[in-house]
Amino acid sequence: MTEIRDDVFERFLKIKDTTRVKIRFNDTDAMGIIHFKNYMVYFDDGFVSLMDNIGHPRRIEDVIKDGIGCGVKHVDITYEAAARYGDYIIVESQIKNINSNSITFHHEIYKEQDKILLARVDCTRYFIDLKNNELIDASEFLLTFTKLDDSS
Amino acid sequence: MTEIRDDVFERFLKIKDTTRVKIRFNDTDAMGIIHFKNYMVYFDDGFVSLMDNIGHPRRIEDVIKDGIGCGVKHVDITYEAAARYGDYIIVESQIKNINSNSITFHHEIYKEQDKILLARVDCTRYFIDLKNNELIDASEFLLTFTKLDDSS
Amino acid sequence: MTEIRDDVFERFLKIKDTTRVKIRFNDTDAMGIIHFKNYMVYFDDGFVSLMDNIGHPRRIEDVIKDGIGCGVKHVDITYEAAARYGDYIIVESQIKNINSNSITFHHEIYKEQDKILLARVDCTRYFIDLKNNELIDASEFLLTFTKLDDSS
Amino acid sequence: MTEIRDDVFERFLKIKDTTRVKIRFNDTDAMGIIHFKNYMVYFDDGFVSLMDNIGHPRRIEDVIKDGIGCGVKHVDITYEAAARYGDYIIVESQIKNINSNSITFHHEIYKEQDKILLARVDCTRYFIDLKNNELIDASEFLLTFTKLDDSS
Repeated sequence: MTEIRDDVFERFLKIKDTTRVKIRFNDTDAMGIIHFKNYMVYFDDGFVSLMDNIGHPRRIEDVIKDGIGCGVKHVDITYEAAARYGDYIIVESQIKNINSNSITFHHEIYKEQDKILLARVDCTRYFIDLKNNELIDASEFLLTFTKLDDSS
Repeated sequence: MTEIRDDVFERFLKIKDTTRVKIRFNDTDAMGIIHFKNYMVYFDDGFVSLMDNIGHPRRIEDVIKDGIGCGVKHVDITYEAAARYGDYIIVESQIKNINSNSITFHHEIYKEQDKILLARVDCTRYFIDLKNNELIDASEFLLTFTKLDDSS
Repeated sequence: MTEIRDDVFERFLKIKDTTRVKIRFNDTDAMGIIHFKNYMVYFDDGFVSLMDNIGHPRRIEDVIKDGIGCGVKHVDITYEAAARYGDYIIVESQIKNINSNSITFHHEIYKEQDKILLARVDCTRYFIDLKNNELIDASEFLLTFTKLDDSS
Repeated sequence: MTEIRDDVFERFLKIKDTTRVKIRFNDTDAMGIIHFKNYMVYFDDGFVSLMDNIGHPRRIEDVIKDGIGCGVKHVDITYEAAARYGDYIIVESQIKNINSNSITFHHEIYKEQDKILLARVDCTRYFIDLKNNELIDASEFLLTFTKLDDSS
């Protein structure tokens, strides 16, 4: 990994994305709160939003439609407080670690109204070429997808 | 039902709401399209959006949080075309029929990109007071909630 | 359509399947009942169970894995009562109508404990060959899949 | 914590539960595999099954219906392989740690057909009295719920 790339990765690690998610009634459960399963969807929204705002004209959705699979290898999530129907939540996302095999994203999920922290998440993802089911070099993918190295 | 109310109901029937929904990756299935179950969520978004834009300062979400239950009595949905990950969909909603026991909503769901009709839905809903589990007069609820009769 | 086939279809229409579904906590919503969306999943279980018990050694799951897509064209569902966490539900399924383009299934969903009817469903499905996205003749599919005509 | 209780807890830690889950078509995503979110549901099935088989006549479902809330504090899940529609999965569950505030469960999720490990999960849960929203002593709950100490 060259010095130039380290510099590029430094820039990736500084990017912060914030997205807003509206909680649906069917996200709740009989305890009256958002079921823990649904936070998987919320930080996935954060991942998509981060990738879409990372500096490339193509949306990650279109890249995925074109045959790049994005899998999840590991999730570590700590639930700090409960949210309810009618709340809006804020997902703050950033890249925590970049490896050749995977990228780890860190997400913090807040209730918009009172900024109460709902959950902290580390999620490690990998990328595969669905045509041959081969793992894609994650750092290469990030560089290619974002074209951030063109500008360095 | 008085003449004045009929007039109010006429106004309800003319209200059209349009809301936009982003399709999530987990809305898809192994056929590569949005699973038919998820359209229940999309027209529910249309219902919430319509109620929130019907002319009352309180959000339907807050009314529901305060102990009004909103149940579904009947759904008739015809699927016309398939949507995929990365698509945005548009839900057009209006009130089709108002009874004392229920309100029927009509929704048309389109793909935003090319305006292709994805689904047509009639959904009949009722309202209950969760404190005593008693059915609320739906037309009264609509008038009270929207306060449209204040202005007539 | 030959007389023999009509006879075969008569036999299809007489087949009744019953399957049992355990309600999960995440099937509930903040009203304390099963969210209306989840009934789509329950009668889908009924469809799979009916197809798996219709007289063919291959499971419908394996047919679908092999490239036959099974889409939903229309759902008409009436909700009669509410179910809660901890309940088991019973899905009774039968074929209601067989066309060249589609098959309509009828499902009745009960609470196991007290046999209370929860919902009645008509669901019209079509079958496509995912290799070329061409519609498969539904009655042919039923005959081929079930091999019921071999025995006539 | 008395010696007798430590002995009881030793017995809890030795209990292993195995439950079988059928994968639904709507559990899949456009990559053709089970979406990572759905494993939250599978190990939740494992939790329910373990609690239902731990030695008490009352089902955990009924305890929850009676006003005991069961929340999730932390999930650590590692995905090892992918499952597909038509697969059955096996969830092996056991108690890993018992604290006064929480209980940590360990789950291993396998594909039934070939015993391939799909995911490993640690999930920490707490119990609250929904009448006053007060945290219940988890070890007391386990003893009361299971009545294992009656037999010691």
